Amino acid sequence: MSEGSGLIRGLEGVVAAETQLCDLDGLNGRLAYRGYDIADLARKATFEEVTYLLLNGELPKAAQLDTLVVGLTAAREIPREMLQVFRLAPKGTDPMRVLQATVAMLGMSDPEATDNSHAANVRKSVRLTSQFAVAICAHQLSHAANFLYMLTGERPGPAAVKAFDASLTLYAEHELNASTFTTRVITSTLSDMHSAVAGGVGALKGTLHGGAGEAVMRTLMEIGEVANVDAFTERSLAAKRRFMGMGHRVYKAGDPRAAILRGMAEEACKQSGQFKWYEMAVKLHERIAKEKGLIPNVDFYSAPLFYSLGIPVDLFTPVIAAGRIAGWCANIIEQHDDNRLIRPRADYVGPKRREFVPRDKR
Amino acid sequence: MSEGSGLIRGLEGVVAAETQLCDLDGLNGRLAYRGYDIADLARKATFEEVTYLLLNGELPKAAQLDTLVVGLTAAREIPREMLQVFRLAPKGTDPMRVLQATVAMLGMSDPEATDNSHAANVRKSVRLTSQFAVAICAHQLSHAANFLYMLTGERPGPAAVKAFDASLTLYAEHELNASTFTTRVITSTLSDMHSAVAGGVGALKGTLHGGAGEAVMRTLMEIGEVANVDAFTERSLAAKRRFMGMGHRVYKAGDPRAAILRGMAEEACKQSGQFKWYEMAVKLHERIAKEKGLIPNVDFYSAPLFYSLGIPVDLFTPVIAAGRIAGWCANIIEQHDDNRLIRPRADYVGPKRREFVPRDKR
Repeated sequence: MSEGSGLIRGLEGVVAAETQLCDLDGLNGRLAYRGYDIADLARKATFEEVTYLLLNGELPKAAQLDTLVVGLTAAREIPREMLQVFRLAPKGTDPMRVLQATVAMLGMSDPEATDNSHAANVRKSVRLTSQFAVAICAHQLSHAANFLYMLTGERPGPAAVKAFDASLTLYAEHELNASTFTTRVITSTLSDMHSAVAGGVGALKGTLHGGAGEAVMRTLMEIGEVANVDAFTERSLAAKRRFMGMGHRVYKAGDPRAAILRGMAEEACKQSGQFKWYEMAVKLHERIAKEKGLIPNVDFYSAPLFYSLGIPVDLFTPVIAAGRIAGWCANIIEQHDDNRLIRPRADYVGPKRREFVPRDKR
Repeated sequence: MSEGSGLIRGLEGVVAAETQLCDLDGLNGRLAYRGYDIADLARKATFEEVTYLLLNGELPKAAQLDTLVVGLTAAREIPREMLQVFRLAPKGTDPMRVLQATVAMLGMSDPEATDNSHAANVRKSVRLTSQFAVAICAHQLSHAANFLYMLTGERPGPAAVKAFDASLTLYAEHELNASTFTTRVITSTLSDMHSAVAGGVGALKGTLHGGAGEAVMRTLMEIGEVANVDAFTERSLAAKRRFMGMGHRVYKAGDPRAAILRGMAEEACKQSGQFKWYEMAVKLHERIAKEKGLIPNVDFYSAPLFYSLGIPVDLFTPVIAAGRIAGWCANIIEQHDDNRLIRPRADYVGPKRREFVPRDKR
């Protein structure tokens, strides 16, 4: 725009929506879904209950939860076309790209794909939540505790299942993070849920967002041993290398999810007999905090946690997507229910108006 | 956020980026790419030249244009996997969904898919621009004038080719419209070009955005004859039906692209022997302008233009995407070159903090 006015880089602090989903209190480091503190939900609720809460506004009664579980189960059968996509993907393809293509393809076969009504959107949310878990595992099996079983091929103990379930809950919703904001911008054109979710997958993939967990784990693997953390930190500081999973635009007093995940990572690393990943993470965290004043965000301790649960590193981000799908869908529904096209302006800083030059005069 | 502060619905008037690409002067109804007026570019430049200008900052010299054309041609061969996607899509699938899945799949085979450097991004932009045209036609044929040939199966006359080429130019770039903003939000997480473009496709699909052209044409077809325009308008006003392709958040003095497209639509409808579509569009435009004070935007006269060029109605939005791809890529490059995570806030208006209720007490 030439009319002028100040650029707000990254839209920092700009309020772009009203929401009833997520109360993110950055000053006090608190987070609640629909009024319920995240620590309570992670500890006491299942991911299915959290999904119901986000989509419907209240925690489910037993019959309501049963209905949801039936819906999740019914959607476990992926159309044969999806399996073709998995087969078409070249070996070594980023699973997030497979997931994005899959969501677009799911939109082709979902019978309500273009129905943007509130009721249809809730039904599609349930189907997508289920299909995400299945799509990530690329097989037609079952859900929830089985999600982890599908991922790792080993039947997990109850502590591992609880840690995994709580992780999905902690990742389920986080206000206008970049991927959720993406789903809202897409929705605001009156496009449909599948189109919006495919966009969200693309955004989550970035290392400044969901991709950070994988980046943290690769860093820990590069460091290799607790004894190497100091040397690594100094080398990285000297090279001005960016530390992923540390720092957050909104949380200044600490990310409440990180504290919960840290406790679960400690326990899971102990259980798995590979405690060194937790020790390395703690030491790295403390060094970076001291040197750079950064504190861990949600993606820092999820790395050693996921790893010790047996999740392959390149599936960390898809697993996060399998949690965040609940929040994306709830945000898409909210946006459709009270829509206004999201269309900001840019400040034009390029060449002034100039005359067209014919090709032979250039 | 509970810290409070005012919601800006739709981010109206918020400046979310600096750009050197597009100077959108809403008050005076003017639009320029990199300083060149859109009317000059539509009349005097080819879409290839406009693509070069957007990606590189200057109009190409002859040798530079040759190199671009070689690059566009080289990318015409779509990997066999993509053709499989077309075959997998159920009959009647929205082509925009096919395009979104295709972009995600192209990201699997592009050798530089995860290289976010400026140089790699420019190369990927050229490939994507070419692949979009080919993907939309779902065949391995040629580009530009041939794009129209591929679409319609008939060899177009020079006037039709020029009108089509100018349409691509007029759609190539438009500052922070919702789809371009989507590509920037996704890019701001340090995700890659293919992921961002797939998101852009999802946003463009909506009827408040690129989907408006198709909606306008379906309205004209519903009206059927010039004599029915008055009755239709009155019925629609009484039913508070929304008119697509009319009105624009930024242009208050008129959309400069609409004026150019109107002239081309008049000519093309004359040539095609179906002048009634143009007459109906003009009459509908005048009635809505009078009753609602709305003026046509870019998507209004592109409807009768595209239709008289022989483009199937459900390919209108994909064709718009084949023009906008140039602007999306240029914006993605600009965002990567000077990135900051785009992450606004939401105003929390849901339930106050409350105690968790165990399942048996609900």
